[in-house]
Amino acid sequence: MKIINTKDANFKAEFESILARAKSDIKGVSSIVSNIIDEIVNEGNVALKRHIEKFDKWEVKSDEELLISQDDMEKAYLNIDEKLRLALHTAFNRIKAYHEKQLPKSWIDFESNGTILGQKVTPVDRAGLYIPGGKAAYPSSLLMNAIPALVAGVKEIVVCTPTPNNEVNELLLAACHLCKVSKVYKVGGASAIAAMAYGTQTISKVDVITGPGNIFVATAKKLVFGEVNIDMIAGPSEIGILADETAKPHYLAIDLLSQAEHDEMASSIMITTCDEVANLTSNEVEEYLKTLSRETIARKSIDERGAIIVASNMEEAIELMNEIAPEHLEVMTKNPFELLPFIKHAGAIFLGENTPEPIGDYIAGPNHTLPTGSTAKFYSPLNVENFMKKSSIINFSKNAINELGEACAILADTEGLTAHAKSVRVRLEK
Amino acid sequence: MKIINTKDANFKAEFESILARAKSDIKGVSSIVSNIIDEIVNEGNVALKRHIEKFDKWEVKSDEELLISQDDMEKAYLNIDEKLRLALHTAFNRIKAYHEKQLPKSWIDFESNGTILGQKVTPVDRAGLYIPGGKAAYPSSLLMNAIPALVAGVKEIVVCTPTPNNEVNELLLAACHLCKVSKVYKVGGASAIAAMAYGTQTISKVDVITGPGNIFVATAKKLVFGEVNIDMIAGPSEIGILADETAKPHYLAIDLLSQAEHDEMASSIMITTCDEVANLTSNEVEEYLKTLSRETIARKSIDERGAIIVASNMEEAIELMNEIAPEHLEVMTKNPFELLPFIKHAGAIFLGENTPEPIGDYIAGPNHTLPTGSTAKFYSPLNVENFMKKSSIINFSKNAINELGEACAILADTEGLTAHAKSVRVRLEK
Repeated sequence: MKIINTKDANFKAEFESILARAKSDIKGVSSIVSNIIDEIVNEGNVALKRHIEKFDKWEVKSDEELLISQDDMEKAYLNIDEKLRLALHTAFNRIKAYHEKQLPKSWIDFESNGTILGQKVTPVDRAGLYIPGGKAAYPSSLLMNAIPALVAGVKEIVVCTPTPNNEVNELLLAACHLCKVSKVYKVGGASAIAAMAYGTQTISKVDVITGPGNIFVATAKKLVFGEVNIDMIAGPSEIGILADETAKPHYLAIDLLSQAEHDEMASSIMITTCDEVANLTSNEVEEYLKTLSRETIARKSIDERGAIIVASNMEEAIELMNEIAPEHLEVMTKNPFELLPFIKHAGAIFLGENTPEPIGDYIAGPNHTLPTGSTAKFYSPLNVENFMKKSSIINFSKNAINELGEACAILADTEGLTAHAKSVRVRLEK
Repeated sequence: MKIINTKDANFKAEFESILARAKSDIKGVSSIVSNIIDEIVNEGNVALKRHIEKFDKWEVKSDEELLISQDDMEKAYLNIDEKLRLALHTAFNRIKAYHEKQLPKSWIDFESNGTILGQKVTPVDRAGLYIPGGKAAYPSSLLMNAIPALVAGVKEIVVCTPTPNNEVNELLLAACHLCKVSKVYKVGGASAIAAMAYGTQTISKVDVITGPGNIFVATAKKLVFGEVNIDMIAGPSEIGILADETAKPHYLAIDLLSQAEHDEMASSIMITTCDEVANLTSNEVEEYLKTLSRETIARKSIDERGAIIVASNMEEAIELMNEIAPEHLEVMTKNPFELLPFIKHAGAIFLGENTPEPIGDYIAGPNHTLPTGSTAKFYSPLNVENFMKKSSIINFSKNAINELGEACAILADTEGLTAHAKSVRVRLEK
């Protein structure tokens, strides 16, 4: 694995090329996706079925066939291996418990003149989750998207997932049953996003769309943003690791590889203050690579988008890491908590040697849907608030309007809005 | 003003046409705006200056001319009328106090096996506010966008505002001084959004862009979404009023008109359970219209996009209003608080006869940047969290990984991710 040093003459350029890591080229497919959306808006189910025949290679004979029944979900749930079902339940319970702690409360506040101000928090009516299908259907994605909606109190949660050759992933269905998903539709790609955003004869329009997907799905989400809300636009997965001389190289190596095996475009970056840890980790990566079922993918990712950076001190290491703003950040140092105040930008922060990143993918509790490509500088992990919204509450008393009305009217006058000013002044005591 | 009754034979069609109220046709200008953005990305300041010459009709002779100095802001602040300055301060203090109540806290939580989970909340590094310029520059827009960023703890707040003929709105500058804005640039339209999203030689890239604007600005915000975060995509302003037989028609009338005077596309809808209130309000609207400085705009808005709906009972009225999901909702009934549990979708809710909507535009405290066009079904008012983001915190103990590691590895195995499984298993005690 490539090792670079912040003291290298060309370090700045090297680091720039790390920052310029894979961004999804949404622009490239925009017009294709825009046409797909238009077809769904104009033709509804007819276009939906045509797209399924074209992309998923099966013929939809009736509208009913688009829907997977609750019975099928329950059957899938009952049929899975006992150990796996228990693991799913453990994950479900822990993810649910964590997201319950995120639940915002409505509040009101009082002023001595009788004014009441507040904020009402309510769930959206309908949420639409996009879950990739076929062999790459991950039940964990379903848990991570459905549970925040469930905890938020969303009444209707629908799922769209592609079923290539009309083959459904049974594990995904089992997870849908566990999460009390209302409806699962066998629809994928940009068509699914359009169908959930605008509605068709079979699929009701939702308020929020979340979930991972390829470049077409990501582009469709961006194009329908505003018609519905969306979570974020995600790119390839990433891990950043901060390591000092106490970190165990074989832990570091396998953790770097756990990102690399996702995708050739995934990026695994370690910044360490210790030359020896850098060298040993690089060697361990080579050893582990040979043992992986997804060796080819992981090797390409490590070779093309992986790097170990040796920094002069932890302060410099953290500064660089804040620039990277990685999706996942492992802090593998002697006392990881003392670095927490200085970490500004990261999707999820994994502290200490017993907290490998995959723990967060499945079972720790926090969401695994995280901002990528430096967008942790402004996006949050998927959370219950993605499925909720707020309304301000304002109740002025007679005293309050008498006290503050004239200041309000002066500002309205200044902006040339006479009806605004009058609407306040008609209420003032003469 | 048009009065319709929910019992009318054609009510459903009439209501549908109300729901289909003005949406911004973003698609229509997408390619123009996309070209403007490309020019800024490729040419930076050179394109910026060209666009200013074209749209704002003045020649920018040096890069420095793009920036308004802190001195100019302070001078503007010191020069404004005393009464107005006091009103600005009152608004500033109240808006700040309200937004401080919204501040989310970082939290951690502990489990008996030693696990620590939490959520760290941090401000973004840089916020960019777009404030429309020239005669329509509203200092209140500046307060409403800058204060949440200020309260969130954003270190650098920059403002872009167009200055037609190189004329700056002094009130806006005064408000910038009050809000401790770092930098104000004389740049407007889609170019300003592109400059803040991608950076130029003079303007640093920001993390979040908020603020109102015309269709070109709204489209640019949508196009740069993902490169930066944005608040929402706003359309024309709206008010919905729920009124019973106790509501005062002349209050209702002037409140409807305070939206109508904003914009010919603005929409003012009242739903009442009382025929007499409907008729009297309609008459009062006609009387007030003649007295308004913006009579022509308000009349067109009321005629084309205004309506009074007579409902059979308050339950039906609320159901219809939840469908409309108005930006501003006034509840003018005998006991407005008792309706609050049933109001699901509205940007801001104004309770009782002493709480006219303009109070919320300027001085009440809650933000006046609110979701329009039914997007209150999924968007929130602008708030401090638009300028903050979260990172999950995960710290597993040795006990925790021993207890939960195998369940995690089973799920990873199921998804075919062997490095994930191994990264957990290497840490388990044999």
